Amino acid sequence: MSDVNSWVGYGAAFLTTVAFVPQAWHSWHTRDLSGISLPMYLLFTLGVALWLVYGLLIQSLPIILANSITMVLALLVMGLKIVQLRSRCD
Amino acid sequence: MSDVNSWVGYGAAFLTTVAFVPQAWHSWHTRDLSGISLPMYLLFTLGVALWLVYGLLIQSLPIILANSITMVLALLVMGLKIVQLRSRCD
Repeated sequence: MSDVNSWVGYGAAFLTTVAFVPQAWHSWHTRDLSGISLPMYLLFTLGVALWLVYGLLIQSLPIILANSITMVLALLVMGLKIVQLRSRCD
Repeated sequence: MSDVNSWVGYGAAFLTTVAFVPQAWHSWHTRDLSGISLPMYLLFTLGVALWLVYGLLIQSLPIILANSITMVLALLVMGLKIVQLRSRCD
């Protein structure tokens, strides 16, 4: 694989990983989760967990690292959304 | 690469792609974008676009297909968020 291809791939992985930092930050500070879809975060977190398993199976450190970070951030947003839904039901 | 590894990878790609369907559906029908972070969708859409370029460079149909779908869905959510922000400023 050429260097250009690898750098495009690393750039893509970096952006789709760090993208969840402003969302997690926004959700944590505002506690405004009303526009967030819980099914999205359920499916997404499950998918990221599978990417992590995939990274471990093929022993790819970039896949393991990127998806570990994304999973923590996605779990945080999902957790805040569940807390919001539960507090509405009380 | 073993069959098991490939299936875990396909499962992961499927889940992280379809995850954006309920979010796009929710955003479209409720027009509630208040909890959505615009910087997240800017970074994420840019990252998905780079994944698409990566898929074209290495000629991987699964990467091209998955990221084309995700890009349309992410662009929809981002567009609705921008419309919401603009209407607040009017």
